[in-house]
Amino acid sequence: MQPFTIITVAEARERLLTVWSGGPTESETVPLLAALGRVLAEPALAADDVPGFDRSTVDGYAVRAADTFGASETLPALLNAGAPIAMGADAGAPLRPGEARAVPTGGMLPPGADAVAMVEHCETPDELTVLVIKPVAPGENVIRQGEDARAGAQVLPGGRRLRPGDLGLLAGVGVAEVRVRRRPRLAVISTGDEIVAPAERPGPGQVRDINSFALAAAVSAAGGDAELIGVIRDDAEAVRAALARALAAADAVIISGGSSVGQRDVTPGVINSFGAPGVIVHGVALRPGKPTILAVVQDKPVFGLPGHPVSAMITFDLFVRPVIRRLLGETHAFAGTVRARIARNIASAAGREDYLRVTLEERPDGLWAVPLLGKSGLISTLARADGLVCIALGRDGLVAGDEVEVLPL
Amino acid sequence: MQPFTIITVAEARERLLTVWSGGPTESETVPLLAALGRVLAEPALAADDVPGFDRSTVDGYAVRAADTFGASETLPALLNAGAPIAMGADAGAPLRPGEARAVPTGGMLPPGADAVAMVEHCETPDELTVLVIKPVAPGENVIRQGEDARAGAQVLPGGRRLRPGDLGLLAGVGVAEVRVRRRPRLAVISTGDEIVAPAERPGPGQVRDINSFALAAAVSAAGGDAELIGVIRDDAEAVRAALARALAAADAVIISGGSSVGQRDVTPGVINSFGAPGVIVHGVALRPGKPTILAVVQDKPVFGLPGHPVSAMITFDLFVRPVIRRLLGETHAFAGTVRARIARNIASAAGREDYLRVTLEERPDGLWAVPLLGKSGLISTLARADGLVCIALGRDGLVAGDEVEVLPL
Repeated sequence: MQPFTIITVAEARERLLTVWSGGPTESETVPLLAALGRVLAEPALAADDVPGFDRSTVDGYAVRAADTFGASETLPALLNAGAPIAMGADAGAPLRPGEARAVPTGGMLPPGADAVAMVEHCETPDELTVLVIKPVAPGENVIRQGEDARAGAQVLPGGRRLRPGDLGLLAGVGVAEVRVRRRPRLAVISTGDEIVAPAERPGPGQVRDINSFALAAAVSAAGGDAELIGVIRDDAEAVRAALARALAAADAVIISGGSSVGQRDVTPGVINSFGAPGVIVHGVALRPGKPTILAVVQDKPVFGLPGHPVSAMITFDLFVRPVIRRLLGETHAFAGTVRARIARNIASAAGREDYLRVTLEERPDGLWAVPLLGKSGLISTLARADGLVCIALGRDGLVAGDEVEVLPL
Repeated sequence: MQPFTIITVAEARERLLTVWSGGPTESETVPLLAALGRVLAEPALAADDVPGFDRSTVDGYAVRAADTFGASETLPALLNAGAPIAMGADAGAPLRPGEARAVPTGGMLPPGADAVAMVEHCETPDELTVLVIKPVAPGENVIRQGEDARAGAQVLPGGRRLRPGDLGLLAGVGVAEVRVRRRPRLAVISTGDEIVAPAERPGPGQVRDINSFALAAAVSAAGGDAELIGVIRDDAEAVRAALARALAAADAVIISGGSSVGQRDVTPGVINSFGAPGVIVHGVALRPGKPTILAVVQDKPVFGLPGHPVSAMITFDLFVRPVIRRLLGETHAFAGTVRARIARNIASAAGREDYLRVTLEERPDGLWAVPLLGKSGLISTLARADGLVCIALGRDGLVAGDEVEVLPL
């Protein structure tokens, strides 16, 4: 194996995203109801003008605004009551000068009407008369045809991950089927001679497979589909066969375990046996996660993540998630960090980034991030963390009360 | 219809959660990989001790700590090299006094060993000898059998919504299948004479169904399954038939539209025709969302949400989401609000809660919440909001720069 120098998280990610030239997955069409959480492959366009007609935003009377100018309680505008407009119905004939027609919220304005007088500002002394006691300006209480969206106008950009409100908007503009990116497939391989399946009872020296499940779930949560290749012995031939299978099945491959420099280190050699460029990063200025491997094989990203579950999850967030975002073509992501104060002093070595798993506590004086400490081998912290705090490269620690950004998990 | 007095959001929610006596849905068993985002129906217990043996947390030599006391670079402890311990293998015979055996990170300690000397603090002048140049304390670099979890101990509480790390933990303690709550079914009915399906081209006066899709997606995002009943004319018989169908199919029913006091107001009457208690809240001190109806029919919550899509989504968050949480038995929820500063002055009437949809902007001086303004009838704001800001009952507005809590959407 060639020697690698340790580089920063940002440099490592940049190198991977440069050497790997792959773009988003192909697009596919799904019904609107199935599109929640999917990423738009192209801009979504309004099928026609929305609304398709001038529409009242209040219960009231459709009028010509000019007919109400100067109206007041003492000197109301006296208008002729025309036929009421029903909800969902064509308003029909144009509004005559001096005419007012009752219209419900959301109802259609007839041609010639340019405003709606709110019902609270109108009186109906008899069936033929409407008195307006407050003038309305042209356009008042009206949404104009096409004001929400013109036919053909973009309502959502490509690259957007769809939220519930987006689905409502798409329904409103007539998009009943949506072009989205195929969910990227990520193959997950766990390596290690000591690993058995969760349903098995581990023998002496053995432990259960944690990473296949935690990483598969992290892939799902990021918008991909995980393909579990299974637990593979720490043996070059076995890993080579698994990697070949994984590359055939997936857009990217995650191998966990077997990336620690020094130990039986079969992973980098196996990766490189698939041809250039192979391993491009081996070792990142990061704790936990230093022995991370980033590679590109057959123009697919291959990740060698540490076997320790907490390290595997952190390096997933830092390196795999950005690749899934690119495979999804996701360009409109909101990082969504939460600001909190750190609850105790934390030492850190300058020259590397430290990632700290924290729980979040709402206290009377605000949100606090409480570091999860304890032996690095314990898996119980896996479930207890609410978020991740990064201690930057140049800092030698945090002082209790320091403000930190927490990336929710 | 009986007259209802306007009550606060908290009072309304409290009344619903008191009158409705329903509990969580029944539980079901799913494979671990399908459990992401599901809610545990019961505490998860470790199948056996985790780890099942004393385990090294470093690469090094398993020793008796007492054998290293006083060791230093100038006067190292001289130990006999025993057989190396392989990863995943039984460590075999007990460690003899004065013996040291190589053990990898995660490897099993032999009986008698109570610490591991890190490989960095050891030298091997020949194959028979290990020199330890730094003493280790008993338990150092070791995770004891059962230290992560004792057989039968609770590793996660019931009522927890499972995250990726949780799935890793469950795999690690031997939980291959998980008891979770059945996803609650919520029926969604859109009422309105003006509403057509998204794939249709609206005629004059007509608009497309937005709420069925936005609400169904909100139900999914909250952990439920939506059952679309469809678009129903504003007619008592049609709404009655739809509600009967919905009650038969679902754990709770959402009706959107038809809840505005004054207009053709068929919904409350139809709900009450199904028997007591029927409508228990009609009108909430809230904007938008004042005409919200909360009801209980056949011990199932029935919601009459405003027809306006933005109001429907806000009242969903305030009233429907807590019901879904109770149906899921979700007791360990993290609210996850984000603190930001409001970007402009906002007026509000004291005596009601105002909910403001905002976009979040990361600026050099922190996170800002920018209110989405514009005509209330426009649907384009549906998709633009990143979160909701509440202006409390007693406040008459916000001043630009005020700190606010933002509930992410």
